[in-house]
Amino acid sequence: MSKGPIALDAMGGDFAPKETIMGAVSASHDFGIDVILVGEGQTIKSHLDELGEKEGGRLSIHHAPEVVSMSDAPSVVIRGKRRSSIRLAASLVKKGEAIAVVSAGNTGAMMAAARCEMGLAKGVQRPAIAQVFPNRKTGTVVLDLGANVDCKIDYLVQFGVMGSVYAGIVLQKSNPKVGLLSIGTEDTKGNDFSRRVLQAMRDEPSIDFVGNIEGRDVFKGDVDVVVCDGFVGNIVLKITEGVAETVLGMMKDALSSSLMSKAGAALVKPSLQRLKKQMDYSEYGGAILLGVNGVCVICHGGSNTKAIRNALKRAHDFSESEMTEQIAEKMELRR
Amino acid sequence: MSKGPIALDAMGGDFAPKETIMGAVSASHDFGIDVILVGEGQTIKSHLDELGEKEGGRLSIHHAPEVVSMSDAPSVVIRGKRRSSIRLAASLVKKGEAIAVVSAGNTGAMMAAARCEMGLAKGVQRPAIAQVFPNRKTGTVVLDLGANVDCKIDYLVQFGVMGSVYAGIVLQKSNPKVGLLSIGTEDTKGNDFSRRVLQAMRDEPSIDFVGNIEGRDVFKGDVDVVVCDGFVGNIVLKITEGVAETVLGMMKDALSSSLMSKAGAALVKPSLQRLKKQMDYSEYGGAILLGVNGVCVICHGGSNTKAIRNALKRAHDFSESEMTEQIAEKMELRR
Repeated sequence: MSKGPIALDAMGGDFAPKETIMGAVSASHDFGIDVILVGEGQTIKSHLDELGEKEGGRLSIHHAPEVVSMSDAPSVVIRGKRRSSIRLAASLVKKGEAIAVVSAGNTGAMMAAARCEMGLAKGVQRPAIAQVFPNRKTGTVVLDLGANVDCKIDYLVQFGVMGSVYAGIVLQKSNPKVGLLSIGTEDTKGNDFSRRVLQAMRDEPSIDFVGNIEGRDVFKGDVDVVVCDGFVGNIVLKITEGVAETVLGMMKDALSSSLMSKAGAALVKPSLQRLKKQMDYSEYGGAILLGVNGVCVICHGGSNTKAIRNALKRAHDFSESEMTEQIAEKMELRR
Repeated sequence: MSKGPIALDAMGGDFAPKETIMGAVSASHDFGIDVILVGEGQTIKSHLDELGEKEGGRLSIHHAPEVVSMSDAPSVVIRGKRRSSIRLAASLVKKGEAIAVVSAGNTGAMMAAARCEMGLAKGVQRPAIAQVFPNRKTGTVVLDLGANVDCKIDYLVQFGVMGSVYAGIVLQKSNPKVGLLSIGTEDTKGNDFSRRVLQAMRDEPSIDFVGNIEGRDVFKGDVDVVVCDGFVGNIVLKITEGVAETVLGMMKDALSSSLMSKAGAALVKPSLQRLKKQMDYSEYGGAILLGVNGVCVICHGGSNTKAIRNALKRAHDFSESEMTEQIAEKMELRR
């Protein structure tokens, strides 16, 4: 049952518009979600025709004459392409015509469009990108994953607060444990900046702060929220993807290295497919931009139909969670 | 054939002194390496007795009355425990009585001892910890992994130069490609500090600098040396270990989840053991401290007999490589 439509940037992503549109069709069928496809009207219409779908019902089209490319600077949505699909999609949330926005396009442009159209939640200094990393228990929220490469101390304290609200909803934890990513658990460990952040986070009453944590702790599941600046966070995200791909690739090589292991591989295939699913970020339905007024889901550029479908589902779930209100409330208490 | 003995901090590491001594015994038998076991003389002697080994021949004992613990501050080797095994081991290199030093103890203390006893190679501002990360081709040298948490721009340029010399030897590349770890490949990507480092590295004629690289590139094998500051590098190291452990753990769970996959698992076991070996850092024989006068190998605190054995082998190989001389030569050219 849909509360309202979600604005999807139909033109954003490596496989757009075909797979973004297919993802929308899939979400409308599987979850009963209403989607506004924002982008070049004729192109979207012909894709829908091909899929035997028509405008009206759960799917509608909002024409946008411009497209932001992956190589465009984020500022292009502010100064240049004001009628781009990514910006118009965000504007639909502002106008109350959509309950959330989803894009697999240029991440910087999506952030700029969201800030510019939707604005920051009251008291928030900088929005942050958060994502759930898989671990052997439930999952760990890690932020910021790249929205802010040069941070002030208080930005990271706010990331802790926003991440805590997000983990409360997405991991269903009533009092999420928050850790600061560093290079040792003792208070003396870290660099000059991280040690100052540590003290500021200790002084923040609204979070359950456990202190410094190490890289390996991200995957242990003992903390629910991991805070770092966007430069470190983006490196962590890509290292994680790189190692997982490498191990799975090596595993594939290893399994095809002998006749015996090939026979074994056939038997273990279903189990390994489940494993791959656990590691697959497209299952997690994208990252979320915390701190803006409304729900903004940012998908991986390489999102396929399934990833878009899951991102629409996630956006829909979050639009009902009053996350923005909770964040604004906590920020109000910090004053 | 041994060129000279290696000083081993027999008391350093989670499984010291038993496994460090067993590692030394193993290296002496397997590779014909001479080892000076530095630590509490009586303790070492009784362990050797238990193993049916005796002092003299390839193994000798150098008594050290003090031990640095994992929780000691690095400065303890300078102001407090001057007769600790870790410091006396480094002093043997300075005196020319050992050709290299190896420790699995307190990393900060090993660095302090090495700097204090062996000194920095001419022109080097800061030593850096480097390690070979496995990838699907040969391997990638990553530095700094934690020696310097707050860096100046030129430190990272020097890490590029030292890493390049190290990769030349360990990966046998005549002109190693050097990349700067950032959050995108374009020159505009990164934080304020990394963008300034990028420009400085572009101006460094002694390295083959390819520009910014991303986290996933570390495991692709397209670059041979990855440069970052010690805060980021240590996080990268521990994230890598964490993801690899998690994937292998999930794989184990997945393989024991059904009768069919259990049968398959038995068949694929030899292949997976080869994979585990590829991912196993103890196979790589520890990290190396670049930029000091002499060879200093730093092992993981959890090093077992095999890891110590391989570290002694690596230290022995490097003592013959004139790595320190090559680094000093390159630094001379930078003046």
